[in-house]
Amino acid sequence: MKAVVLLSGGLDSSTVVYQAKADGCECYAISFDYQQRHRRELDAARAIAQLAGVVQHQIVNFDLTQWGGSALTDDTIDLPSDRPVEAMASEIPVTYVPARNTIFLSFALAYAETLDAERVYIGVNALDYSGYPDCRPDYVDAMQEVFRLATKQGREGNPPQIVSPLLELKKTDIIRLGNQLGVPWEKTWSCYAGGDRACGRCDSCLLRLAAFKELGLEDPLPYDAPSP
Amino acid sequence: MKAVVLLSGGLDSSTVVYQAKADGCECYAISFDYQQRHRRELDAARAIAQLAGVVQHQIVNFDLTQWGGSALTDDTIDLPSDRPVEAMASEIPVTYVPARNTIFLSFALAYAETLDAERVYIGVNALDYSGYPDCRPDYVDAMQEVFRLATKQGREGNPPQIVSPLLELKKTDIIRLGNQLGVPWEKTWSCYAGGDRACGRCDSCLLRLAAFKELGLEDPLPYDAPSP
Repeated sequence: MKAVVLLSGGLDSSTVVYQAKADGCECYAISFDYQQRHRRELDAARAIAQLAGVVQHQIVNFDLTQWGGSALTDDTIDLPSDRPVEAMASEIPVTYVPARNTIFLSFALAYAETLDAERVYIGVNALDYSGYPDCRPDYVDAMQEVFRLATKQGREGNPPQIVSPLLELKKTDIIRLGNQLGVPWEKTWSCYAGGDRACGRCDSCLLRLAAFKELGLEDPLPYDAPSP
Repeated sequence: MKAVVLLSGGLDSSTVVYQAKADGCECYAISFDYQQRHRRELDAARAIAQLAGVVQHQIVNFDLTQWGGSALTDDTIDLPSDRPVEAMASEIPVTYVPARNTIFLSFALAYAETLDAERVYIGVNALDYSGYPDCRPDYVDAMQEVFRLATKQGREGNPPQIVSPLLELKKTDIIRLGNQLGVPWEKTWSCYAGGDRACGRCDSCLLRLAAFKELGLEDPLPYDAPSP
């Protein structure tokens, strides 16, 4: 069974590609260089794709800095730092990139339709990032309906199925799952800042570090700041 | 009222940008260089955007030849030529580009969300191209639901509205509408082939020529082949 897997190189999507393998899929990874703040996560995506043994890894290039609208695509907007984890889910953060998951899933759909793939895996998660509108179950359902109506396969009754195995998991559950699957955490990259070492202060680092800490585990990734 | 308008430079989308102006919108045009067979249609899009007086014109670049799957993104697939117009709607043609409208609408949504635009105009047409799955009313409805659920505006009850004024029009009706609106047909470009003059033999040329002929009008665009 062929599956397209959205792979950013972060903790979540890296777990998803190992899950897709465990589900018996031939994986076709897809990543995006949208002129985000750094290329570091793309290096991580390449490393994970290779280690997980995907059949092919496509990197699609486009430029979302053309209109900005996010701290990840507009350098004049500061990244939040040192925020308490509890505060992160309360509103849409400045790191939200307008329509990013919709763009990503659209390209994944195109790739899947060309491959005649049965599944599209995405690591969205509704719990820890509930500030993002495009990470919730009803959003995923709406995209599934688009997959059904937009494609030749869908018109024939076999649309690619969106699989989102992390949708209802907490970050600690994702780490537990990744440990079972053997995800090499040290090769992943979650930090928004993209220095030589993870910053340990952006929302993404703090959420990740807090989850490892809650589990009594050490994150093998080197960090600049001391763990909170 | 701000509106993002998908503008390919063809007959349909050029009519749509003039319709959006007539509806009282400040127009923000968006076009796509996806490594389609030729850049000629992008030149047309630039010309129409300027003549219609849009506020801004974004051209988004990406490469759909990475996976092909269409005669427009894979040079080894021949363009159909000299097909009877009646045959065109009976099946999905080789010029269908997998998930293209979904990708286009996703970028338009991102642009609209950043602008806080109220509308997104698209020139899809369910009648003359019923072979394309992503040009039908139920597909547009599904994308509207994505617009509602994927965005900050949608979560606040004001999602950008997809407006598809050509959805139920025949090509002849579109030309009538464009004539009322003053669309400069000679600046548009519909041909798939992209030579110095329109080929007059691809599906897109034939459909356009047949509609002008049915109306007893002359298409002001120069063609290589004699009109059918």
